[in-house]
Amino acid sequence: MEVYFDNSATTRVLDKVVAAMDQMMTENYGNPSARHIMGVRAENAVKQAASQVAKTLKVKEKEILFTSGGSESNNMALIGTALANKRAGKHIIASNIEHPSIYNTLGFLEEMGFEVTYLRVDQKGHVDLEQLKQAVRQDTILVSVMYVNNEVGAVEPVEEIGKIVHGANPGTVFHVDAIQAYGKFQIRPKKQGIDLLSVSGHKLHGPKGIGFLYIDEHVKIRPIIYGGGQQRGMRSGTENVPGIVGMGVAAEEAYTNFEEKVGHLCALKDHMLERLKEVEGATPNSYPGRESAPQVVSVSFSGVRSEVLLHALEDKGIYVSSGSACSSNHPDVSGTLKGIGVKPELLDSTLRFSFGRFNTLEEVDYCIETLKELLPVLRRYQRG
Amino acid sequence: MEVYFDNSATTRVLDKVVAAMDQMMTENYGNPSARHIMGVRAENAVKQAASQVAKTLKVKEKEILFTSGGSESNNMALIGTALANKRAGKHIIASNIEHPSIYNTLGFLEEMGFEVTYLRVDQKGHVDLEQLKQAVRQDTILVSVMYVNNEVGAVEPVEEIGKIVHGANPGTVFHVDAIQAYGKFQIRPKKQGIDLLSVSGHKLHGPKGIGFLYIDEHVKIRPIIYGGGQQRGMRSGTENVPGIVGMGVAAEEAYTNFEEKVGHLCALKDHMLERLKEVEGATPNSYPGRESAPQVVSVSFSGVRSEVLLHALEDKGIYVSSGSACSSNHPDVSGTLKGIGVKPELLDSTLRFSFGRFNTLEEVDYCIETLKELLPVLRRYQRG
Repeated sequence: MEVYFDNSATTRVLDKVVAAMDQMMTENYGNPSARHIMGVRAENAVKQAASQVAKTLKVKEKEILFTSGGSESNNMALIGTALANKRAGKHIIASNIEHPSIYNTLGFLEEMGFEVTYLRVDQKGHVDLEQLKQAVRQDTILVSVMYVNNEVGAVEPVEEIGKIVHGANPGTVFHVDAIQAYGKFQIRPKKQGIDLLSVSGHKLHGPKGIGFLYIDEHVKIRPIIYGGGQQRGMRSGTENVPGIVGMGVAAEEAYTNFEEKVGHLCALKDHMLERLKEVEGATPNSYPGRESAPQVVSVSFSGVRSEVLLHALEDKGIYVSSGSACSSNHPDVSGTLKGIGVKPELLDSTLRFSFGRFNTLEEVDYCIETLKELLPVLRRYQRG
Repeated sequence: MEVYFDNSATTRVLDKVVAAMDQMMTENYGNPSARHIMGVRAENAVKQAASQVAKTLKVKEKEILFTSGGSESNNMALIGTALANKRAGKHIIASNIEHPSIYNTLGFLEEMGFEVTYLRVDQKGHVDLEQLKQAVRQDTILVSVMYVNNEVGAVEPVEEIGKIVHGANPGTVFHVDAIQAYGKFQIRPKKQGIDLLSVSGHKLHGPKGIGFLYIDEHVKIRPIIYGGGQQRGMRSGTENVPGIVGMGVAAEEAYTNFEEKVGHLCALKDHMLERLKEVEGATPNSYPGRESAPQVVSVSFSGVRSEVLLHALEDKGIYVSSGSACSSNHPDVSGTLKGIGVKPELLDSTLRFSFGRFNTLEEVDYCIETLKELLPVLRRYQRG
């Protein structure tokens, strides 16, 4: 049995998405800037994809800016806002469990003279709202908080954060990294007070190398890539038309029969959490139901190194992640797990199981049975 | 008859490239950072593509950094070099016929306190080497010159420029925008003294949304996108594996039977230039043979606005570009055409015909016959 439980790292692309992309590569392959019909067709395809995406968020088509992926979206949100607003202030706020594409970009901005306040989170991974209230200042130009944490699936109280931020300083830009949330939650930027929102295609059965940044039409932000003035001058470079078209199809797909699709993921999660009770020394860092993300189950296994368990599971055809795959080239112990207070001895004993559209309850059962079989053996080895 | 003569704007993707990409989207769809076999397979595919590209330039695999395309490569070359070397100086040199992804990025750097000297070009579009010799200073950190001009196909004396730059200041980084040259010229960065080289996938029958920057291993440059530390920390973000694999295949294809392929393009160009003699009031801005790029024919047509002729040709199924499609959202009159001294009355009467692998001599003949038929009619209209 082959079980791919690493959907928060990346997903299989839908056949429908692949077909739409292939068509843009071999038939409608024009450059959207070209003035002849091949260009017009490509331009229309980009517009259609923007419209498909905009509908899922109930925002305007012109508020969607396509990027090369989640990391570029996050970099542009932070650097673009900082450069555009530096005269208003140089203070930025973020949580202390952000993705590396946020905290390493903040590191760059600190070097450039910006000041960053990092907010604590509680045991469930939720940002400390009292601390946030105290932290917003007159020179705070930007607050950046993720929607869903990539390592444990914690869901931040985005709407409350938006209210606090804009209540304390109406000029502060509120950015949300929704890379693990988009496709799994009904996101309403206008209602939730979100000014900027980052999304990646390949986390929702769309292509790699594409993403978007929602930019509220009233927000001032600068580009980070300069050139031919594509996308209203905000992101130069010939548009990745096949990727953009694939993103549009994947977005529309994710939000068609949405409740059913999310229900399926949630059923997998709840089943896994329920059955994990049978597994000795397994402590979940995720929660059942809709209070944590439907697709993520983080589990700490006492007495076993995550690397060892990961490869033992791999031998049985089960593919999972240790900590966050996005940063697994950095062997540092996870900031999120520390942030939520996972015991030091379990930090290096934690795996992330993450679900996608193609997973089944049978796969969860197989995974649980395999864990029950492997763990006693591995623990004996590690003691020896 | 449908004739696509806009290959310098973008090209049809090869079926072989599409097939390789599809496989990476639906079968080997892992994240290269993942530690299980799906991750390893993706990582190996990225390494193979880097090796395919490196071989075409005779450089090391680790000197290839994949980006989201030519514009990102150019932005990274300029901004990354400027930020990494600002203590050594703040002076930069470029030609005055660079692509917008160079000159608009230089505009950003000027705003950040850098100083830019722009070099004149002669009637053939060649950089003034005497002016270059005078321009290199002790605080010159970067010289950026394109290999092939995108509007007229002028080929810069890259190797001579490299010698002058490094002779005058061994610490100066020499960047070459090879977006219109890669796949059409045998480029040897080590021999030609090129420290950084920008390439885009979609100009050579590869995918949009992918490109690379060759970075000589001894050159100091900073990333412009921060995050999970992918590609040795130099370009964060989950690698666009399908795009990278497509780039690798397209690169290998372009340099297999290279002379034959370039010979075909050159034959199309020479045939077009020869037959243009039959067309009244047509002044080419490109040259036969290998002294200008094999794929570009720029022509000024007296007494006809380029926009009008472009659409008249489109009605006959011939797709071409007015000026550079990459910047056609900017209706400014071309900098290149002015730079090479095209007469003011012809600036707005110039079209670019650009060839790709799938074009034929018959298409060139059809294009010439169509021009001969259309021009007298259009000229009569414009006079009226």
